[in-house]
Amino acid sequence: MVKLVALYKKPNDPDSFDRHYSDTHVPLISKWPGLRKVEVGKVTGAIDGEAPYYQIAEMYFEDMDALKTALRSPEGRAAGADLQSFAPGLVTMLYVDVSS
Amino acid sequence: MVKLVALYKKPNDPDSFDRHYSDTHVPLISKWPGLRKVEVGKVTGAIDGEAPYYQIAEMYFEDMDALKTALRSPEGRAAGADLQSFAPGLVTMLYVDVSS
Repeated sequence: MVKLVALYKKPNDPDSFDRHYSDTHVPLISKWPGLRKVEVGKVTGAIDGEAPYYQIAEMYFEDMDALKTALRSPEGRAAGADLQSFAPGLVTMLYVDVSS
Repeated sequence: MVKLVALYKKPNDPDSFDRHYSDTHVPLISKWPGLRKVEVGKVTGAIDGEAPYYQIAEMYFEDMDALKTALRSPEGRAAGADLQSFAPGLVTMLYVDVSS
């Protein structure tokens, strides 16, 4: 299993961000081919100092081929374009191989 | 459900890090009271540029009280001390409220 992990820094307007994320972005992601699971969480704090992120979203796939196929699909490109519209510069996207 | 997310920067000696993590650190975490699930993954890349992290570990609990009870327990303190021994300065620990 692999996942695409999106680490979001704190947006200037969290309410507007949250609304767009749940009403528009999640429905776009939900259409990705091969998507097995999505897990979204709000960062509520850090053990040391201030948390460097506001939200973490994880999109799970069977393997890296399936993940990359989803990103290249029309549905993947639509979500990417949407991301640029409401969270430019806020997100770090990591490919992660889930080992356990 | 909540989770403690540990974001590890790349260690100087990844082989030694991996060995200590799997042979010593994971067994210590596994003893945490209230722990529901652990998911560990290796970062294999990023969509833009170089990935800022090497590994992501997520420890799941029923709620924040259970998570903080685990961290304060002897088993939590043992894992914290171990972390300082093999990954000082490498890890960012976030509290995350899993919303979906």
